[in-house]
Amino acid sequence: MEQTQNSTMTTPPGLKGVVVADTRTGDVRGEEGFYHFREYSAVELARSRSFEDVCHLMLEGTLPTPAQSQVLQDRLAQASVLPHGLLEVLLDVARTGPDRASLARLRTAVSHLGALEGFGPTYGADPAQVRADVLRLVGAVPVIQAALYRLRHGLEPLPARPELGAAGSWLWMLTGEEPSAQHSRAITAYLTSTVDHGFSASTFAARVVTSAGSDVASAVCAAIGTFAGPLHGGAPDRALDSLDEIGSPERASDWVRDKVAGGERIMGFGHAVYRVMDPRAAMLREIAQDLGGPLADLAVRVEQEVIDALAELKPGRALHTNVEYYAGVVMEQCGIPREMFTPTFATARVVGWGAHILEQAQESKIFRPSARYVGPQAPAPVPGTSS
Amino acid sequence: MEQTQNSTMTTPPGLKGVVVADTRTGDVRGEEGFYHFREYSAVELARSRSFEDVCHLMLEGTLPTPAQSQVLQDRLAQASVLPHGLLEVLLDVARTGPDRASLARLRTAVSHLGALEGFGPTYGADPAQVRADVLRLVGAVPVIQAALYRLRHGLEPLPARPELGAAGSWLWMLTGEEPSAQHSRAITAYLTSTVDHGFSASTFAARVVTSAGSDVASAVCAAIGTFAGPLHGGAPDRALDSLDEIGSPERASDWVRDKVAGGERIMGFGHAVYRVMDPRAAMLREIAQDLGGPLADLAVRVEQEVIDALAELKPGRALHTNVEYYAGVVMEQCGIPREMFTPTFATARVVGWGAHILEQAQESKIFRPSARYVGPQAPAPVPGTSS
Repeated sequence: MEQTQNSTMTTPPGLKGVVVADTRTGDVRGEEGFYHFREYSAVELARSRSFEDVCHLMLEGTLPTPAQSQVLQDRLAQASVLPHGLLEVLLDVARTGPDRASLARLRTAVSHLGALEGFGPTYGADPAQVRADVLRLVGAVPVIQAALYRLRHGLEPLPARPELGAAGSWLWMLTGEEPSAQHSRAITAYLTSTVDHGFSASTFAARVVTSAGSDVASAVCAAIGTFAGPLHGGAPDRALDSLDEIGSPERASDWVRDKVAGGERIMGFGHAVYRVMDPRAAMLREIAQDLGGPLADLAVRVEQEVIDALAELKPGRALHTNVEYYAGVVMEQCGIPREMFTPTFATARVVGWGAHILEQAQESKIFRPSARYVGPQAPAPVPGTSS
Repeated sequence: MEQTQNSTMTTPPGLKGVVVADTRTGDVRGEEGFYHFREYSAVELARSRSFEDVCHLMLEGTLPTPAQSQVLQDRLAQASVLPHGLLEVLLDVARTGPDRASLARLRTAVSHLGALEGFGPTYGADPAQVRADVLRLVGAVPVIQAALYRLRHGLEPLPARPELGAAGSWLWMLTGEEPSAQHSRAITAYLTSTVDHGFSASTFAARVVTSAGSDVASAVCAAIGTFAGPLHGGAPDRALDSLDEIGSPERASDWVRDKVAGGERIMGFGHAVYRVMDPRAAMLREIAQDLGGPLADLAVRVEQEVIDALAELKPGRALHTNVEYYAGVVMEQCGIPREMFTPTFATARVVGWGAHILEQAQESKIFRPSARYVGPQAPAPVPGTSS
């Protein structure tokens, strides 16, 4: 066993707690249960600002003036129109693969769009061009996802309706029904609160790709592929499936005991960074309760049962609901089909990926870490050669 | 300015010299000018073993017995047959985007293949299934790339000819001509020597994606996207373009002076890790000289002129030729079209990405690093809200 000669520093698995970059995008303060976009509380933004305003904040660095907001809305409206060359292949893509492959289909469509429009390297590019490419994808990703969904189910894709705002347009494109103001507000809060969340694996992947000077579509495809992983990309649908499985609050305690005894993860509970309640979950619980109905009541009661049971079974390790738990409830309440829960998350997160790509594109250093070689001593003689 | 509370360790830009994982895949010893695959010298393998043998070494951990070698060759032959659902979209993909977008087109095709065949998460998967998915792509990537090239140029794609070996089959699929034994041997050495090279950005991106439990196609798409970056993915064609531009050895000195004065990078010289001559360049120079002809003579003389001029202009900073310099010469000598130089590199490197994906899939920890927030102090009051 020999240590690689270039190594100077060893890190914990998964780079946990390791600072890999400086950032102005925001931060997640796990101990406090607080996170912010730029200098503003993300939850406060989600409660008070439009998705487009937060998009401006993340991509331009400031909350927009009314005039800037209008410019951005116009650009996003343009970016929501898909080019003919993409529409041509979208039906093929929509019909491809198993149901669970929705993010794989999105990855293909984004990749094709990037090639079609000739996205150039971020290396040496004018930041305005990088920003334009990011906005192209922020505008296109929801339309692509809704179109893939509808085509797969034999429905005509619907064009975006930017005048409804990002959330209203998303609900419209999925269902073909005029969204209520209450549902639009609820989904606006969800989308806005989830545009970014520190150096999650998908964001980090986007930054690694960008560090090679690659184009924005390459970075976003990497992020989508990471997001698709069961250890990342949000599983609000699986959290809701668990809620269905539990069925009634009285069954929660037994259900948790079975899961914990079997060493299984409980979807919707616990978070890698937060040591207190996920602030997104707290906000979404309030929204779920405002929207009301039996699902919200069940969710709130089951949450308490699960927390009580976990406190008893795993004392000292407080587990709280995470964003996925109430995100699933709110999306269900607003009529989003369950298979579109993770795609809804992706629709928001592409903004954060874009902000990180923009920031990374200003750095000059490619990510090229080291590893510790732990195999048999090298060089060993190659069998069958005479040297 | 406030440091994120989860941070415990700060690292150099690009994680240079930072050990992010243990690995058994091999190592690059930059100071020695030596690198190895598993425990064997990579250059010695490239000189003495088939591409398929090295593929077995990287993906299974050992050099194969003759029987194992046959099994692998059969599996790769199967994997080189593209499914109907991919062929259907390949013409559209081939016609899409500017010439320089060849890796973007490959990314789309690999993404589509992954969706089409329903590649599942690596998380919790049987390693044999992950290996099968890797082999699928190792077999398919050269065929896809050759088909995209031929379709774009209005030519019928050619099926692989596994009996010619990976290099021979590649030359055949590109040119439609029976490759000479000497060309097949030269390209075998090139492909074999470049299957892996430590934690380069593309390999690291593949590992980050895999760490989320994502599927093999997601990880390879991320790697392809990274590889496409001008700071990474090999620019053997650009190195050769420089050689064309220099034209004759007498012009080398002036040419270098102009470049250095203009602060430009000189393609084909210098490497992030090697402090001595890139051992791949040394091997490929020998091969180029064996193949012979005016290009090889020019390359060898220009190399010396450039090194001399650099030594004078940048004393103390020794620059050597890297793999790209002679790789371009050898590929040109073997009749590979210049636009297919980087795709040839990708054809080899997918093996290394696969080996790293397989290894990463056995790790349980998702990459989720931290960052240092360096923006304005948060939280600032959100303008326009009353709180």
